[in-house]
Amino acid sequence: MASWGERLAGVRGVLLDISGVLYDGSEDGGVPIPGSVEAVARLKRSQLKVRFCTNDSQKSRGDLVGLLRRHGFDISESEVTAPAPAASLILKERGLRPHLLVQDGVLSEFDQIDTSNPNCVVIADAGESFSYQNMNKAFRVLMELESPVLISLGKGRYYKETSGLMLDVGAYMKALEYACGIKAEVVGKPSPEYFQSALKEMGVEAHEAIMIGDDIVGDVGGAQQCGMRALQVRTGKFRPSDERHPDVKADGYVDNLAEAVDLLLQHADK
Amino acid sequence: MASWGERLAGVRGVLLDISGVLYDGSEDGGVPIPGSVEAVARLKRSQLKVRFCTNDSQKSRGDLVGLLRRHGFDISESEVTAPAPAASLILKERGLRPHLLVQDGVLSEFDQIDTSNPNCVVIADAGESFSYQNMNKAFRVLMELESPVLISLGKGRYYKETSGLMLDVGAYMKALEYACGIKAEVVGKPSPEYFQSALKEMGVEAHEAIMIGDDIVGDVGGAQQCGMRALQVRTGKFRPSDERHPDVKADGYVDNLAEAVDLLLQHADK
Repeated sequence: MASWGERLAGVRGVLLDISGVLYDGSEDGGVPIPGSVEAVARLKRSQLKVRFCTNDSQKSRGDLVGLLRRHGFDISESEVTAPAPAASLILKERGLRPHLLVQDGVLSEFDQIDTSNPNCVVIADAGESFSYQNMNKAFRVLMELESPVLISLGKGRYYKETSGLMLDVGAYMKALEYACGIKAEVVGKPSPEYFQSALKEMGVEAHEAIMIGDDIVGDVGGAQQCGMRALQVRTGKFRPSDERHPDVKADGYVDNLAEAVDLLLQHADK
Repeated sequence: MASWGERLAGVRGVLLDISGVLYDGSEDGGVPIPGSVEAVARLKRSQLKVRFCTNDSQKSRGDLVGLLRRHGFDISESEVTAPAPAASLILKERGLRPHLLVQDGVLSEFDQIDTSNPNCVVIADAGESFSYQNMNKAFRVLMELESPVLISLGKGRYYKETSGLMLDVGAYMKALEYACGIKAEVVGKPSPEYFQSALKEMGVEAHEAIMIGDDIVGDVGGAQQCGMRALQVRTGKFRPSDERHPDVKADGYVDNLAEAVDLLLQHADK
């Protein structure tokens, strides 16, 4: 494999995944991954541009940033690309009235959206709200539409909390896709539109940007599809088999964000 | 299209789906579909062989037969092919110890099976038991296995109860398949092994048998794949668009079981 110097040459902007890279979530707020608070601070003091690109759809962007700030991270709402606000914009543009299968914590992102007489379903990482009753309700809304529209905030398979692996929205998206015989529109990684909006907000071209994430498919594969480079951290939902993934090969594997930032500060933009 | 006489010539055995053909289920026992009680009785008085072939995995075979008998149907346990007893046999043969994601009502079918230290997951139509917590538990069992085995009792997309459409086990099977990156083994329609076991129990060859069901894919398509003929009834989960299905064309569409039996008694085995 090429040297780190070659692999990181010309990087001007860094997209950071949040869950599994900055911190491991849990019901009571989670814990920062060792070294990540300092790594973000060092990155932000450097000449590199930084943006956070999350698929978290359990919390509003404000709540997520508040939580991370309490953990000591230097982060503000305007630096975060998140699926719920992105979906809210799309709904407004297309005049869609969603039935929301989401957690209460993220409802505020849809405050401005008309949800009467729904003509689509928006599904997020609803956690405990993925009851049979709630799934069946969303299913029936879709089956009553002539052209069912299902918008999924990400399509992650699972993520890691301190208590263990947790099913993510992608599993439930697949359930509704199969039951209704439809294909969901994904707002979130690895959708190219989503990465491109994050790049635009950061003001960096794809070939000058690198994604750092714990998801070999959603983060690494998705970013590479957009022409970016991507590192996988061995934290969060990383599993050793990821390094032998049949389809996706990261531009590098690092133990954690701290190691990624060490390498970037040493080799990027040279 | 050929005449009914040509389409039904040489039929010696009839496989009957239960839910949506004999009765529409509901939480309080459901209601027989008009004419079906008499249709089953007429069929059983004829020279045709009859077997019931269900994907119902919510109830034990004994409970299902008890319910149908209370509705007036002439049916006994030995005439029913059902996925839970079929799966129970497979588990025994292969020495598999399942984690069961099923409703309490069907647990008795697995009485003889060791469920300690599970090395596979069996998923049935668990209804309200498809909570996030239960799904996550099954998911974690699979993720901890080196070669995860997921056995699904059917793969139906949805069925119809008197209260409306209900998500079926197939949707949740797809969720686990996607989350774990695996493929489930299906015990139930449209699995060819399942149809073949029903034919064997009836003592009729595929080309002499006809399936009557409300599911264009699971009943009609599955039976035709096995070399049987198949009629779709316009009851249960039937939707008008089924008659324009892109891949599956029934050998005939009838309003209900009563009409199917009229035609069979007139034209079969001639």
